Amino acid sequence: MAKSFGSDNHSGIHPRILKALAEANSGHSAAYGDDPYTARFEQMIKHLFGNKAKGFLVMNGTGANILSLKALAAPYNSIICPTTAHINVDECAAPESNIGCKLVTIVTPDGKLTPELVKPYLYGFGFQHHAQPKVISISESTELGTLYTINEVKALAELAHSYGMLLHMDGARFANAVAALGCTPAELTTEAGVDVLSFGGTKNGLMLADAVVFMNEQLAPNFMYQRKNAMQLASKMRFLAAQFTEYLTDNLWIELAENSNRMARLLASKIAAIPNIEMTQSVESNAVFAILPEDKLKKLHEQYTFYDWDEARCEARWMCSWDTNEQDVEEFCCGLNRIMSE
Amino acid sequence: MAKSFGSDNHSGIHPRILKALAEANSGHSAAYGDDPYTARFEQMIKHLFGNKAKGFLVMNGTGANILSLKALAAPYNSIICPTTAHINVDECAAPESNIGCKLVTIVTPDGKLTPELVKPYLYGFGFQHHAQPKVISISESTELGTLYTINEVKALAELAHSYGMLLHMDGARFANAVAALGCTPAELTTEAGVDVLSFGGTKNGLMLADAVVFMNEQLAPNFMYQRKNAMQLASKMRFLAAQFTEYLTDNLWIELAENSNRMARLLASKIAAIPNIEMTQSVESNAVFAILPEDKLKKLHEQYTFYDWDEARCEARWMCSWDTNEQDVEEFCCGLNRIMSE
Amino acid sequence: MAKSFGSDNHSGIHPRILKALAEANSGHSAAYGDDPYTARFEQMIKHLFGNKAKGFLVMNGTGANILSLKALAAPYNSIICPTTAHINVDECAAPESNIGCKLVTIVTPDGKLTPELVKPYLYGFGFQHHAQPKVISISESTELGTLYTINEVKALAELAHSYGMLLHMDGARFANAVAALGCTPAELTTEAGVDVLSFGGTKNGLMLADAVVFMNEQLAPNFMYQRKNAMQLASKMRFLAAQFTEYLTDNLWIELAENSNRMARLLASKIAAIPNIEMTQSVESNAVFAILPEDKLKKLHEQYTFYDWDEARCEARWMCSWDTNEQDVEEFCCGLNRIMSE
Amino acid sequence: MAKSFGSDNHSGIHPRILKALAEANSGHSAAYGDDPYTARFEQMIKHLFGNKAKGFLVMNGTGANILSLKALAAPYNSIICPTTAHINVDECAAPESNIGCKLVTIVTPDGKLTPELVKPYLYGFGFQHHAQPKVISISESTELGTLYTINEVKALAELAHSYGMLLHMDGARFANAVAALGCTPAELTTEAGVDVLSFGGTKNGLMLADAVVFMNEQLAPNFMYQRKNAMQLASKMRFLAAQFTEYLTDNLWIELAENSNRMARLLASKIAAIPNIEMTQSVESNAVFAILPEDKLKKLHEQYTFYDWDEARCEARWMCSWDTNEQDVEEFCCGLNRIMSE
Repeated sequence: MAKSFGSDNHSGIHPRILKALAEANSGHSAAYGDDPYTARFEQMIKHLFGNKAKGFLVMNGTGANILSLKALAAPYNSIICPTTAHINVDECAAPESNIGCKLVTIVTPDGKLTPELVKPYLYGFGFQHHAQPKVISISESTELGTLYTINEVKALAELAHSYGMLLHMDGARFANAVAALGCTPAELTTEAGVDVLSFGGTKNGLMLADAVVFMNEQLAPNFMYQRKNAMQLASKMRFLAAQFTEYLTDNLWIELAENSNRMARLLASKIAAIPNIEMTQSVESNAVFAILPEDKLKKLHEQYTFYDWDEARCEARWMCSWDTNEQDVEEFCCGLNRIMSE
Repeated sequence: MAKSFGSDNHSGIHPRILKALAEANSGHSAAYGDDPYTARFEQMIKHLFGNKAKGFLVMNGTGANILSLKALAAPYNSIICPTTAHINVDECAAPESNIGCKLVTIVTPDGKLTPELVKPYLYGFGFQHHAQPKVISISESTELGTLYTINEVKALAELAHSYGMLLHMDGARFANAVAALGCTPAELTTEAGVDVLSFGGTKNGLMLADAVVFMNEQLAPNFMYQRKNAMQLASKMRFLAAQFTEYLTDNLWIELAENSNRMARLLASKIAAIPNIEMTQSVESNAVFAILPEDKLKKLHEQYTFYDWDEARCEARWMCSWDTNEQDVEEFCCGLNRIMSE
Repeated sequence: MAKSFGSDNHSGIHPRILKALAEANSGHSAAYGDDPYTARFEQMIKHLFGNKAKGFLVMNGTGANILSLKALAAPYNSIICPTTAHINVDECAAPESNIGCKLVTIVTPDGKLTPELVKPYLYGFGFQHHAQPKVISISESTELGTLYTINEVKALAELAHSYGMLLHMDGARFANAVAALGCTPAELTTEAGVDVLSFGGTKNGLMLADAVVFMNEQLAPNFMYQRKNAMQLASKMRFLAAQFTEYLTDNLWIELAENSNRMARLLASKIAAIPNIEMTQSVESNAVFAILPEDKLKKLHEQYTFYDWDEARCEARWMCSWDTNEQDVEEFCCGLNRIMSE
Repeated sequence: MAKSFGSDNHSGIHPRILKALAEANSGHSAAYGDDPYTARFEQMIKHLFGNKAKGFLVMNGTGANILSLKALAAPYNSIICPTTAHINVDECAAPESNIGCKLVTIVTPDGKLTPELVKPYLYGFGFQHHAQPKVISISESTELGTLYTINEVKALAELAHSYGMLLHMDGARFANAVAALGCTPAELTTEAGVDVLSFGGTKNGLMLADAVVFMNEQLAPNFMYQRKNAMQLASKMRFLAAQFTEYLTDNLWIELAENSNRMARLLASKIAAIPNIEMTQSVESNAVFAILPEDKLKKLHEQYTFYDWDEARCEARWMCSWDTNEQDVEEFCCGLNRIMSE
């Protein structure tokens, strides 16, 4: 399969990660996290997010999101998120099934919640018929490729906390956000008031590993049991840990995200020069959204791999990956240009 | 860490599996199972278990067991298993939490159910207060290292089916059973009346991959959604599939299991020659269970890695792995001998 | 407490129902539904809804709705309903917690779904990431006091069935709908294509009893176990059955609903004559919605019991009950008039 | 139906309770517990169990037990109970489905746990694979008609608390225990260390009402939401409260239980005089258990209503109710005598 613009999980494993897997494959090791690789992972998490932070490895992004939220919310709670949130759109009702709670979804123009958008939903506290609002969940970067600034995150954290609620960040593409904002991981989370982060790895060069990071581990004293109970405890944990520690070593995670972000900007700049394509979202991380004439879109699908975001309005989504390179973008834009000018 | 006799998941990844991961890491591939590796896996499953069979990759043994059972049982059902079943002992209530059903547990001398043991629990059908018996779950090989013969499996399948129930086989160590019995996978499952198999890989040389195999895919027409909903769908599925297909190629899975079985027999034969150790289970796969004097057991723990099966009666469990070799066994038995004769 | 316009469950038990309770209280009777009262209830349900129908008594409206839906939907499914649906607004996330599924909510002007409103949400079938649409749920009468005509119900049933989905009717106020439409219960359900009905009693003169009615009992062969498993099986079932059979005898249920409907119309006609009150919904059953000036609304709350529907826009809801009489309406309108003209 | 010895829920409603229902049926009242009857109920609970206690009305015994336990236990927990516990035997897996947890069941001779029986199951704390023991659940009186003394309850409470666990008392027949022991409700619960009580009413003369009583309401600060979320919140709550407050007035609850206890003792004394019947449990509350010759048991079933406890060993259970009288017992024993001497 040629390079795909379909999803950042169409790409494979970064060579350094594969090498780390091979190196961790030396002799025997205790299972279920009682190994030096996992200990090192936990240390690196504290280093990145602060000494009170605690990281737990899980097996996929679904697990990271659901378990983050399950640790904070009871079945009688609600979780507030944008309608476009991955937890709302793409998890086959896993939040409802595995946590029991209600998702309260808010329409946004750009995938981003704001205090103004959220406030009208902050009611019914203490009313026994109303699912009690408990968590605000935001994606950083968002499913629409946009970014919250640190201050925007802070404003939502303050709002949540002022209502006794908590702030969850779906960081399936957290690396892309940190890379784009040029901040530290702690500045965008711990210091901004985030309570729990789904820290993605799989979409950015790992084979299979994501993490749940509590900024204050006291928030989830029983997470160890919740992870096992929810089927997300890997036995040969060292191989998840080895991926993640390599990922965090020498800024590999940031480098890979910088590449996919840069490729998206490159793609956007080239597309901007092509008539009759309307870009629909600001290109702030590794995604480009645009509306094309229906016949052109159809032809493009015949030659390239990508998904429509909104079929009804002929809106395409193009994702760049850690291994997307300038030639891939060039080639794709050539093809697009050709089709558009036919 | 020196070779451990603690668990077969203390061992690492077989070199051929690691190589297969590297080879699958070529370019982009569609995610979530829509890739040629997964297609090949599905074909191999049909080849092994029959044309009506359907295999699904999941991420760990917990997922394989829980999802196998969730596909067959409703919350108002009960699942009958030995008290020693992994699903009862070691899953932190995951079956109850994720399926909703009751586990009805039966005391056995050797980890094996028999029709005689099960029959007294087959009552209350149609009585609305009684959790309706729906599945008999057996482990092959068992958690005590013993084996069901094909005829013993058949007898349980017939019993289950005669009550409108189904038979689940927890095959976390299915390879060890097939290797030890010298039969085909189909003879021990499809042809014996098994309805669904948890087909383990992680404990026998894979990094992380297990499978759910329905002998008749019509049993679980919605499994695809159930897997996603239960957080067990991997995005970069090709890397699970690549492991499993290599595992099933040229009998690698059987070879590895034959080794661990042989090492357990070797270990048992050496232990049999040491006075004051009482082996407590027949050594039929890759586990050895024995009772030692308390002080000896304590000393042994200081020098080797293994777990006690029953602390109260000083019963140790020693597991052999795909990579356990004669020298490991020799060295361990030397140490054991030395301690026992002090 | 004076007569309340707060909710139709503020009223008490109709004398005939109380008498039926007393009459059923004669000697011993088998528990859990194995009694002649329940048998008679089941017969009456068949008489009303057709021979394939099967009714089950449950303990409250929450139970009727959740169990209706749980019988039809799996955790990986979604249920489509208006944002104003009781199951969405007032059940403290019970649908999500007890069924596991997602509620997909649609904004409506009048609490009523239409095929046009629903169709955009009928997608993602067969896509494993998408909660699979399974049930359309409508309330009849609606939470806004409006009514679906029989043809409107039919159109939604046809739409649902054409997608392999099912139609649920939340009939907490089913009596009000049947009374207002002047149809038979079967015309509005069985013959219109409804698959399952939550048949309310508590809001219309019963003490405590609601029912789940499957139009075709083959839809829910295991409902008996699901009801017990979900804690909704009453032990002294005869006292639920006795209420419901009396309710259905000599059209008592229709008479009571006709009264509350008529009182709502009377209330509406009187309000229409008062300046500066804007009625916001068509008065088709037993509810009246209207917007008042903020200061007037506040004063009215000091003297009468009722709830605001939408605090932000000063929209009040006034519910009439089976025992609301002309004097109650008169007295309330006098007060309202006085306040409005101050 | 003649007086039944089948179950104490075969009996009807005590006349005083029915009268209380009628009296509560006066005008309108706020719903969902915001009424004076419920307030009075809460006060009476504090009076009986201490000022820190908090009572919540639910709709049946299943609800009382499941919600008591759900308030205390998480899905990754286990609950320790006798194999004979109602929550294990007769709830169609409701504890597993609605709490998610595992029931760890212990074989007892008389339905009673002891510290010695429980201790072997108190292990695995902190081990992530093991369902974490959280609650010990006992029935008082037990399903076998036996009683814990206050000191026996204390011993179990101390054991539970010493492990950071809690003690639940299934008091479906709590009145029978208090009546038989001649103690106060607080002596048997609050003062003995019980943490939560399922306080039964339905089996002892109510129509439909049970309660959950937390000895310290801080144990369950979110119970209000949990009750609604679990479908156990009644709308016309005043009618549950009116039953329960009448039940607790002038010792009605104790009087009724004293009668059924006395009838069981009478029954037992008469049976003791009949040859070839072996009573199998000490008669300490309102149940009598005995083994009969198979043919006699069969004949008895033809003439009287009761259930077999253990069909295999021809063990019958005879329950006395609040309305069982000496003539009923006399008549039954005559019949039994006749059959036995044929």
